[in-house]
Amino acid sequence: MTQTRSKMAVGFIGLGIMGQHMAARIMAAGYALSVYNRSPEKAAALVAAGAVAADSPGAVSQASDVVITMVGYPADVEEIYLSKDGIVASAQSGAILIDMTTSSPDLAARIAAQAAARGLAALDAPVTGGDVAARDGTLAIMVGGGDDAFEAALPVLERMGDRIVHLGGHGAGQHAKMANQIAIASTMLGVCESLIYAKAAGLDADRVLDAIGKGAASSFLLNGLGRKILQGDYSAGFFVHHFVKDMSIALIEAERMGLDLPGLALARRQYQRLVDAGHSQDGTQALFRVYDAPAPGAGG
Amino acid sequence: MTQTRSKMAVGFIGLGIMGQHMAARIMAAGYALSVYNRSPEKAAALVAAGAVAADSPGAVSQASDVVITMVGYPADVEEIYLSKDGIVASAQSGAILIDMTTSSPDLAARIAAQAAARGLAALDAPVTGGDVAARDGTLAIMVGGGDDAFEAALPVLERMGDRIVHLGGHGAGQHAKMANQIAIASTMLGVCESLIYAKAAGLDADRVLDAIGKGAASSFLLNGLGRKILQGDYSAGFFVHHFVKDMSIALIEAERMGLDLPGLALARRQYQRLVDAGHSQDGTQALFRVYDAPAPGAGG
Repeated sequence: MTQTRSKMAVGFIGLGIMGQHMAARIMAAGYALSVYNRSPEKAAALVAAGAVAADSPGAVSQASDVVITMVGYPADVEEIYLSKDGIVASAQSGAILIDMTTSSPDLAARIAAQAAARGLAALDAPVTGGDVAARDGTLAIMVGGGDDAFEAALPVLERMGDRIVHLGGHGAGQHAKMANQIAIASTMLGVCESLIYAKAAGLDADRVLDAIGKGAASSFLLNGLGRKILQGDYSAGFFVHHFVKDMSIALIEAERMGLDLPGLALARRQYQRLVDAGHSQDGTQALFRVYDAPAPGAGG
Repeated sequence: MTQTRSKMAVGFIGLGIMGQHMAARIMAAGYALSVYNRSPEKAAALVAAGAVAADSPGAVSQASDVVITMVGYPADVEEIYLSKDGIVASAQSGAILIDMTTSSPDLAARIAAQAAARGLAALDAPVTGGDVAARDGTLAIMVGGGDDAFEAALPVLERMGDRIVHLGGHGAGQHAKMANQIAIASTMLGVCESLIYAKAAGLDADRVLDAIGKGAASSFLLNGLGRKILQGDYSAGFFVHHFVKDMSIALIEAERMGLDLPGLALARRQYQRLVDAGHSQDGTQALFRVYDAPAPGAGG
């Protein structure tokens, strides 16, 4: 059984679109919250609502029973956790460190080992669901780490997600998130190739979606991002550059395991074309650009 | 407005799993039904229920106001429609010919042209939904052809499907079905690569599906066939050899249109490995075999 410790002090590092919503939900549940963000202006709304602004990840960690991070890249994760005055060096004995960034399974295991040497528990807990689920507390959270830390962290995690799955030891949450991104990668190829075919064949692609959107071809991406593509809406729900980062991690892990994942590798290459064309700030549905206006020499 | 002509005589050619259900529904609605199948034993149940068995496609056509075909391959479609004593040569003036086989858009246009020259109307009307939807009359039906023929055929089509979309002229139904198969092709890559990654990472892949099965990675195939894969159930809902046929048609059409569809091409190659290993009678989810036990020299 889990115990709600509403007086537990929570620190939250990384206040992007996702992190701001997640931190706000934790504070709204009565936890004392301290926050840090590299660009301090992103902390303003939370501070106005009662959070304490700290001036470094280490300062957040000194004040917190639970430290949560939601930053951009594995390099950021490594720096804030493992640098000389980082989270692992600064946190109180007995604290629980939860990295919710989508990051490398290997790095999650390294952080956990260094944390354990200082009497700290670490969890990797990446999420899916996007900003709407972050706001509504309906994220899926994939957790790797020890049972005791998972149980102790669960009340806090339950403020952010409604589908919280403990998948195994350190790195297991990140591996599950990679499985998620791998499924998305090739599905996006299928969505874009289906729609460009429909358009090239002279069909009304919206009517094609009407016809195929509930059968075997149906997916969250076809029905959601497919319509955006047909409206020419490439605005970001999830950034291309973040997805490219995730696919790169997955490819490195797959290679390490001796797995050949040619669909993932192809998707990674197609998205690189999108980045090379200057569209890394678009949403992932912008992959359609690669098909709609192929680069010179790209075939097609 | 459409008019129900319940005395209209319908002929049905091709009584596989799909065709038997579809023909039975038409007869149950009060249409006079004549049937033909290359293997006559597959007509037995329908004949016992009141259908008239004919001994050739031409004989079915002579007796019918509406002729429906649901056979295997484009070569079969071409033979039964365009051979010397085939459907086009045998049908009554004013008859409507409806090919519901997944077949080539180009062939659909050729059949329509030859049919028109004899005063016949043709529709291409491939379906999605599988045997359960065929039994329940809930297929999606994608229709190409003229407006008058579509309106006249609609009462019969409505016995078989609940999502009937008229997409344009001759071949448009087949093109829409290709768009459907193209989306499926790469999505299947994503499903298999996601699950083999989860297994290789030592995760409980069923729990991974629990975690990712409602978010951005979710699809009909991930949630449906993904579970079958994890049970080792490769039984056919939809045969590998039929899917390979469909992907080959789509690739030919894409090439004709100058479209580069690398995800589809990759899926076609991966499925060919499955065929080469002797699994063409499996269901499409058997693609996982290619990842789970890579062929020698296949990388991975």
